[in-house]
Amino acid sequence: MWITYPGDFEIWLGNAFNNRRTERGAMFPPFWKQDTHYVTVEFSTVVRLTHPETIRITAEGRYNFMLDGKLQYGEPSTFLIPDGEHRINIKIWNQTTPPALFITGDTIHTDSTWLATYEDKIWIDENGVAHGSGIYVPAAVHPAFQTIEQRPSLFRLSTSPMRPVSVEKEDGGILCDFGKETMGYVILHGGRKGDNIDIFYGESREEATDHDRCETLDRITVSADGDYIVPDSKAFRFVHVITHGSPLSDVTALYEFLPFDTENSGSFECSDPLLNKIWDISAYTLDLTTREFFMDGIKRDRWTWSGDAIQSYLMNYYLRFSSDTVKRTIRQLRGKDPVTAHVNTIMDYTFYWFNSVLDYYTFTNDIAFVREIYPRMRSLMDYVLGRTDTRGFADGRPDDWIFVDWVDFPMPKRGVMAFEQILFAKSLQTMAECAQLLADNQPINLPQGSLTTDDYTADARHYSSLFSSLRQQTDNVFWSDEQHAYLHHEEKGEVSQIITKFPNMFAVIYGFADAQRKEEILHSVMLNPAVEPITTPYMRFYELEALCIMQQHDLVLQEMKDYWGGMINEGATSFWEKYIPGEQGTEHLQMYGRPYGKSLCHAWGASPLYILGRYFLGIRPLKPGYEEWECRPHLSTLSYMKGSVPTPHGPIHLSVTPDTVTIQSPIKGGKLYLGDKCILIDRTDEPVTIQKSGCSK
Amino acid sequence: MWITYPGDFEIWLGNAFNNRRTERGAMFPPFWKQDTHYVTVEFSTVVRLTHPETIRITAEGRYNFMLDGKLQYGEPSTFLIPDGEHRINIKIWNQTTPPALFITGDTIHTDSTWLATYEDKIWIDENGVAHGSGIYVPAAVHPAFQTIEQRPSLFRLSTSPMRPVSVEKEDGGILCDFGKETMGYVILHGGRKGDNIDIFYGESREEATDHDRCETLDRITVSADGDYIVPDSKAFRFVHVITHGSPLSDVTALYEFLPFDTENSGSFECSDPLLNKIWDISAYTLDLTTREFFMDGIKRDRWTWSGDAIQSYLMNYYLRFSSDTVKRTIRQLRGKDPVTAHVNTIMDYTFYWFNSVLDYYTFTNDIAFVREIYPRMRSLMDYVLGRTDTRGFADGRPDDWIFVDWVDFPMPKRGVMAFEQILFAKSLQTMAECAQLLADNQPINLPQGSLTTDDYTADARHYSSLFSSLRQQTDNVFWSDEQHAYLHHEEKGEVSQIITKFPNMFAVIYGFADAQRKEEILHSVMLNPAVEPITTPYMRFYELEALCIMQQHDLVLQEMKDYWGGMINEGATSFWEKYIPGEQGTEHLQMYGRPYGKSLCHAWGASPLYILGRYFLGIRPLKPGYEEWECRPHLSTLSYMKGSVPTPHGPIHLSVTPDTVTIQSPIKGGKLYLGDKCILIDRTDEPVTIQKSGCSK
Repeated sequence: MWITYPGDFEIWLGNAFNNRRTERGAMFPPFWKQDTHYVTVEFSTVVRLTHPETIRITAEGRYNFMLDGKLQYGEPSTFLIPDGEHRINIKIWNQTTPPALFITGDTIHTDSTWLATYEDKIWIDENGVAHGSGIYVPAAVHPAFQTIEQRPSLFRLSTSPMRPVSVEKEDGGILCDFGKETMGYVILHGGRKGDNIDIFYGESREEATDHDRCETLDRITVSADGDYIVPDSKAFRFVHVITHGSPLSDVTALYEFLPFDTENSGSFECSDPLLNKIWDISAYTLDLTTREFFMDGIKRDRWTWSGDAIQSYLMNYYLRFSSDTVKRTIRQLRGKDPVTAHVNTIMDYTFYWFNSVLDYYTFTNDIAFVREIYPRMRSLMDYVLGRTDTRGFADGRPDDWIFVDWVDFPMPKRGVMAFEQILFAKSLQTMAECAQLLADNQPINLPQGSLTTDDYTADARHYSSLFSSLRQQTDNVFWSDEQHAYLHHEEKGEVSQIITKFPNMFAVIYGFADAQRKEEILHSVMLNPAVEPITTPYMRFYELEALCIMQQHDLVLQEMKDYWGGMINEGATSFWEKYIPGEQGTEHLQMYGRPYGKSLCHAWGASPLYILGRYFLGIRPLKPGYEEWECRPHLSTLSYMKGSVPTPHGPIHLSVTPDTVTIQSPIKGGKLYLGDKCILIDRTDEPVTIQKSGCSK
Repeated sequence: MWITYPGDFEIWLGNAFNNRRTERGAMFPPFWKQDTHYVTVEFSTVVRLTHPETIRITAEGRYNFMLDGKLQYGEPSTFLIPDGEHRINIKIWNQTTPPALFITGDTIHTDSTWLATYEDKIWIDENGVAHGSGIYVPAAVHPAFQTIEQRPSLFRLSTSPMRPVSVEKEDGGILCDFGKETMGYVILHGGRKGDNIDIFYGESREEATDHDRCETLDRITVSADGDYIVPDSKAFRFVHVITHGSPLSDVTALYEFLPFDTENSGSFECSDPLLNKIWDISAYTLDLTTREFFMDGIKRDRWTWSGDAIQSYLMNYYLRFSSDTVKRTIRQLRGKDPVTAHVNTIMDYTFYWFNSVLDYYTFTNDIAFVREIYPRMRSLMDYVLGRTDTRGFADGRPDDWIFVDWVDFPMPKRGVMAFEQILFAKSLQTMAECAQLLADNQPINLPQGSLTTDDYTADARHYSSLFSSLRQQTDNVFWSDEQHAYLHHEEKGEVSQIITKFPNMFAVIYGFADAQRKEEILHSVMLNPAVEPITTPYMRFYELEALCIMQQHDLVLQEMKDYWGGMINEGATSFWEKYIPGEQGTEHLQMYGRPYGKSLCHAWGASPLYILGRYFLGIRPLKPGYEEWECRPHLSTLSYMKGSVPTPHGPIHLSVTPDTVTIQSPIKGGKLYLGDKCILIDRTDEPVTIQKSGCSK
């Protein structure tokens, strides 16, 4: 298989991905630092052979080949390794795409046992002896790069043909309706070389036909007679094609997608058809935004955003369980040192990034990834800790973006925000847990330059102490016994009396609020109509999660039907960036002061996937990678529900009626909670039905 | 002209340059981290037009174009800017070569007034207002990229044809002797497509004909009938060409070189023909090693090395005054943050790097370059200061290479080396001086994110205090009143009684030793035959410089004639990496345990250029860029000498006999010292002759 330096493929691909965004035909790169791959990387291994063996060497980049410390002539494509123990070192230089190596022989193959370094740091001591002080890490492998033909630099998503469901002549052009929101490459059929053709894309009919204001467009000069595939994929439901030359014979498209594992996918079906529709459209929304990376929205921004991504990850654990897309996105978002800004320039997005690593570990048990990313967690946390006030609070500096949410009321964002401190505390806790995890799980053969057990143990202690102190400080400063809530912020030494849902719901989700405070928060904040409502699916994710944790399943079900059902009533074929129930007609298309500024397919719109899987089917890992797991089904007002939840071992199938729970699990260690009763679930090849009778409600 | 992000062209070109080294046909990259250019860069300016103006836009990379904050369609190659004040922002993405921009119009042109950033850091505040918190710097311009055709990515050295001076049949092949050491591309004439031809290069006849052990070779398959130019340039005097197909009609070469300013070059001629030959061969040696960057040696390593480079810079100020090559090399050597190792992994080389910046400023008065590089000086010094012991000494850490010199006697290099502390102290002094310089010379319109005057002032104080403390500590620990010398090192708390020339001569050169100590060092170290001799031209540079400072010109002249004259006697056509007078025949070719391991054209071999210009012609700047300068001619045992020293204002010409000094200067501010007399020299269009009579000797 191909090997690369860890993270480099993602950082390189991320540049192509993020720079692919266009706004009315102009490239629109992100406004944060774009890192790139290490251009010169050395890969090495030691082999022990009983027979001589010829290996075949393929590289992306110019390379050299060293056997037992001796450079060999040129760039050998094959090499005979003698029997016995031998050291192989290969250095590859590639400015354009990540240095990558593929070696195959009878027994020798590039894989994750190989080491990689971008700096071997050779030096010569006073006795003329050469030493190497480089930092080595296990080489990265990728499921998509198994064969020699699957070169990392050639990575592409899959495509399949699609046709519009209706075509009409409109305004001197052809207006194609593909029937639902989609993403892909438009194909113009039967054009003539040199023809000038304009393509206006719309998530709505209004957008595609409003040529002066639609968000994306292409002005094409056809390069040859016949079929012409537009070079960049775009988001659209409607495409308005204006031909300035000979008429086209047809307009179709290639749907572009990341293939997923149909054998290990999530599903949900219940007695409520609207809820089923909500789940299906959520799944489609997440599939559309699950690409090279988890994308915020397919029309806009088409970037990776950490706050959006952590929600996609959580939904993904209940839909496709694409661990690789999670890892790719986490690596891409982090980039490289030096840290010069928060992730995506947003303070909250830095904190979500930390927490996504522990979430990933919890769902997958992939400790190798935690070990890989930990040094970059550490240097990102150094950046955060270098910007705190004397009490240890992460007060926003003049160049920090404090996002929280898009809100429709005046909400102060300067000074010390309670919301940010709660996220920060959770990040410190995450750091401490990851450090302890790595201290407890050191591999036997540590590559040169690795962090030691002592390093990890010291880190765990350090972060744990910072966590305790910050949590205490946050409680002291922001919890109000009078208001029964965390207050919004402190500015110029004054704690405001403003209450918002944000800090309160995160205190519930992260378990920082005890049972008593949870109860207070439920009534004084979450159910209090005087507190400003949330108007993005983004923060509704956490709002509904907090309500579920506080056992408000009936309310959550109704909220889902009202809110996501409301979008469906407005004609949504995928879920939106923002939805304000009272708005009318084309008001739903507007955002950021632009008539079609709103993204109508936004990953954070798909949160019912997570809420239904995690809190209604009620399945989640108790130990990393579902080595232990629980199922706490909540039928709520439904008369039945059934569904599947993917795990690293395959899907758990569940079916629930008022009287029975039927379960089939590919893995032991399950705990089914029915009322106050806990039933242990073993691996079951066939569905097993458990009667609820005798269990308290 | 083309603009790029400062330093990025050099870092990118440096990768091509350093990775071009081969050893017996195998690519041989350096063993330190190779950085690369920022792949996405934004360039911006504000224009004020009285008439509308059409600009022409050319970029290396994909780009967008924003006028007054509004993105324009596609990648416009021309654009009409309306009259009035307008803001232009262009973002360019290029993974392969540095993003570069060329804009030209009637009044609008890209130049160093444009700003560049790799991170505009846009964010939105609580009122929905967008802000940018990016760090902006003046865009970099390059003299080589003035016209639209001179794209940075196409930068190449010049070439001119050359022929061997003799050709003989040898061992079934053709042995060409080009008469002297040279560097370029071999051309095979009259080959047939598909012919296999081997080329063995030699700095000596022995090397070119020793096919199994020569250091560089090419195995070529001719790609077309006719003339074939070998793709990579190589160092050679002899080339042995073995044809495995049809015979060749001829073998020639293209000499490859960096053009220099013949109008502003140094020269030297005197009554001693051997000294004249030494100067000429030194000049040729430095010309051969002055390329995209200052290179250590043209056969090996063909890399940039900071310790070698600082000497090349100083020689260059007395030969070609190529400020651009100095800047390119300083930028390339520094690379980017994070700092993960010393420059070239060598502690001493880090210190030379700092000092080279102040040297450059002294000779050129180019404060803009100091301002550009200062943030990277600061972060490199942070790295150094993060690795000191409790007394502030830079004790070598296990992964630091302590080089000092190639020595032929056992010399301890662990613990705290006096030599390194003296270099470190000089670096701290350099930091303090640069910081103060920038504090005193802030431009009026500082780009956003620039260091403030307060920042610089605080730095100057900080570094100055560290300097004083380190100098004091070094004196306390290492100066021996008994031995009248700086002792070599301290290890495990014990100061050794070993004396080497290294710390002592640097204490003299940097002015850390006062008159009394200088005198002691002269006798107890520099002239003491019991102290181990120096055997590389590298450290002979500083040895001779220290002796000149201690007024030992007669001795230095004789040493030059013996040592460099010794190489000439052995047939040198360029000066060597190392020379041990007692060695015989092919012993001179050996090094590193390899029969032809020694480089026979090594930049550090050319130091007579500096010694003769600086201490015999005696010319040097007293104020930056020769705004004030002095001439202290030392005829020594010569009956006459004449020569030229380049300055930013053109060359100063000097001619000295025992009775007269004739001087012609393009710049005022000169001080001619004759004995204890100082004569002020104004700008002189014609040579002016001054009689020495009346001046004390």
